[in-house]
Amino acid sequence: MEKIKEKEKEAKTEQEEAAQVVNPWEVSSKGKIDYDKLIDQFGCQRLDQSFVDRVHRLTSRPPHIFLRRNVFFAHRDFNEILDAYERGEKFYLYTGRGPSSEALHLGHLVPFMFTKYLQEAFKVPLVIQLTDDEKCMWKNLTVEESKRLARENAKDIIACGFDISRTFIFSDFDYVGGAFYENMVKVAKCVTYNKVVGIFGFTGEDHIGKISFPPVQAVPSFPSSFPHLFSGKDKLRCLIPCAIDQDPYFRMTRDVAPRLGYNKPALIESLFFPALQGETGKMSASDANSAIYVTDTQKEIKTKVNKYAFSGGQDSVENHRKYGANLEVDIPFKYLSFFLEDDDELEHIRKEYGSGRMLTGEIKKRLTDVLTEIVERHRAARAEVTDEMVDAFMAVRPLPNMFN
Amino acid sequence: MEKIKEKEKEAKTEQEEAAQVVNPWEVSSKGKIDYDKLIDQFGCQRLDQSFVDRVHRLTSRPPHIFLRRNVFFAHRDFNEILDAYERGEKFYLYTGRGPSSEALHLGHLVPFMFTKYLQEAFKVPLVIQLTDDEKCMWKNLTVEESKRLARENAKDIIACGFDISRTFIFSDFDYVGGAFYENMVKVAKCVTYNKVVGIFGFTGEDHIGKISFPPVQAVPSFPSSFPHLFSGKDKLRCLIPCAIDQDPYFRMTRDVAPRLGYNKPALIESLFFPALQGETGKMSASDANSAIYVTDTQKEIKTKVNKYAFSGGQDSVENHRKYGANLEVDIPFKYLSFFLEDDDELEHIRKEYGSGRMLTGEIKKRLTDVLTEIVERHRAARAEVTDEMVDAFMAVRPLPNMFN
Repeated sequence: MEKIKEKEKEAKTEQEEAAQVVNPWEVSSKGKIDYDKLIDQFGCQRLDQSFVDRVHRLTSRPPHIFLRRNVFFAHRDFNEILDAYERGEKFYLYTGRGPSSEALHLGHLVPFMFTKYLQEAFKVPLVIQLTDDEKCMWKNLTVEESKRLARENAKDIIACGFDISRTFIFSDFDYVGGAFYENMVKVAKCVTYNKVVGIFGFTGEDHIGKISFPPVQAVPSFPSSFPHLFSGKDKLRCLIPCAIDQDPYFRMTRDVAPRLGYNKPALIESLFFPALQGETGKMSASDANSAIYVTDTQKEIKTKVNKYAFSGGQDSVENHRKYGANLEVDIPFKYLSFFLEDDDELEHIRKEYGSGRMLTGEIKKRLTDVLTEIVERHRAARAEVTDEMVDAFMAVRPLPNMFN
Repeated sequence: MEKIKEKEKEAKTEQEEAAQVVNPWEVSSKGKIDYDKLIDQFGCQRLDQSFVDRVHRLTSRPPHIFLRRNVFFAHRDFNEILDAYERGEKFYLYTGRGPSSEALHLGHLVPFMFTKYLQEAFKVPLVIQLTDDEKCMWKNLTVEESKRLARENAKDIIACGFDISRTFIFSDFDYVGGAFYENMVKVAKCVTYNKVVGIFGFTGEDHIGKISFPPVQAVPSFPSSFPHLFSGKDKLRCLIPCAIDQDPYFRMTRDVAPRLGYNKPALIESLFFPALQGETGKMSASDANSAIYVTDTQKEIKTKVNKYAFSGGQDSVENHRKYGANLEVDIPFKYLSFFLEDDDELEHIRKEYGSGRMLTGEIKKRLTDVLTEIVERHRAARAEVTDEMVDAFMAVRPLPNMFN
């Protein structure tokens, strides 16, 4: 009887969860994504104010806006990274991108902006993986086109301001081989008991359920994959800044790590950057109007914000003045909470717009200005990135000052 | 009605075939392996006397014993290789080994001995793959142990007498990367429609049935996998000498090749070298008494031949003199037909032993002498192979005289 009840309970939970699907290939939700439930389901931890304060203290600099505003809201073992750091041990950062499109949108920039801050604040080395092999495999792209896109994306990444003396950018097609490939085989070997194996993504099972798992994306978590950087430092810890949908990948990597003699990589995980049309999922690469691209002009940004940004404002000025805006669903306000640096101004907008004293047109105007500034700053920085700089960032070389 | 009959016929054939299983992982047969049926089932061609004569004429040297004796008995597109050669076009040879054991047995040497002859006779380059990654993956071997075995096996291979100016030996752990890895991804991509993909072996289907297929073993068939050797020679043909059980691997490679713009690799395929206990399968690495190893002493060879070599001779001298030996199942005679160079002497033994005038002890004595000579010659050659020579054969380098 007890068992039947449990089963019923399980069935119900599964049904409820079915309404919200989040994994590296799919993010969908009937309503707003319930991030608390996600933390529960994935088994990661919430990143609370004590972490923000601790990072502030350890790095002696104001925490990044994404940390203050809880854009990065969850983690796995980030406390261990900080404990080790406090003891004088360094770590390295690992992030990446699948180069499937020419131009990045603001959502793509979020992890890179945050990673740049972490690199500066902690003065640690960083490896950035461009998975051109996976994109070639799964998208309709030739090897050459995937490699070209990887280099184009590298320019956008470099434009975020990474320190070349601490950063190694690599594409899988360029870099797979040697110690990196050995680790790929070791990882693949760890999951052969499932009998479905491979390099690009095979199905495994962990405590949560069946997931696909690419060794090529697991092994940058292990220092020995980069002998030109971390030779003899097999116990160096790795911190991965990423969006929460990447958690299943790295969960499996964390399961495998100790069996290969490495520390589990730590994760620091962000909210999804919402689509202009509203916060029910990630932005879609196939719909140019769902996102602001780093290639958009001021005019395009203005049009997109005015035309597509889902508003929590009321349908008439009269009602708006009366009821105020619903900030829970308002995209201009969400976007400003990601990108408007001034905490006081954001608080002012929250009050004014939330109460109806500020109108939708006004907040959209402010957002257009903020986004235009970011995009134009990025575009100017990208224009300075030469092919020689890309070669320099991607050269297999030691980073002599990486821990200074 | 016609259809039902056909189905019955199909079912019967399947039943018959179930008694004989030959693929890269399993060779088993209830009785003698029916090679004619195998050729039929696989869809390859018999290598008849006209080929032997043609090779003789084209290379102006006597055909190798394995060719004269029909040890290499089947092929795919070998005629096209010879046509091209006659037009003045060269080709390259590709063979390999999975380095799972320390010492090689005579069956392992067969393809290498034949490949050495082909290289000399046609004056063509050769690539030899050591699949240490696969053995690490599927056997209980560490990366380090697999790599060590690869180098040990390389010494045995070099001892066969390959010409260093025309031979590139590589291990997957050393060489996977760059153009080779790009081809692995391209191959894997060609079969993604099956949804089960990977580098080390995924399941595909061809006109004959389901087979597993490792891209890492497919891509050495494509010249662009070796840019240091064949840059700009994408249409160079590849000839693969191998045992017939490897046919399914390369059949799938042949299916993929034209989709990637390459010629289908040609195959020249051998019989199985039989176990000492009799011709029902391949030798077993787990039973040291099933094969003659290149590390065996003269005494060990003598003991193995006398004790384990399955005899077609009769149970008493009297019966033997009366009925003669059954050469169809006699292992000493089979082994001599592989390794006794002198055609006249073999013919003499066939008559004398087959008629019962020669006794089992006599043929076993002759076989012991022949095998001892081969093994001792091999051992002497292997003792001369230094680590520097292994490095030299395995160096990624051009082979300047490879087509001269």
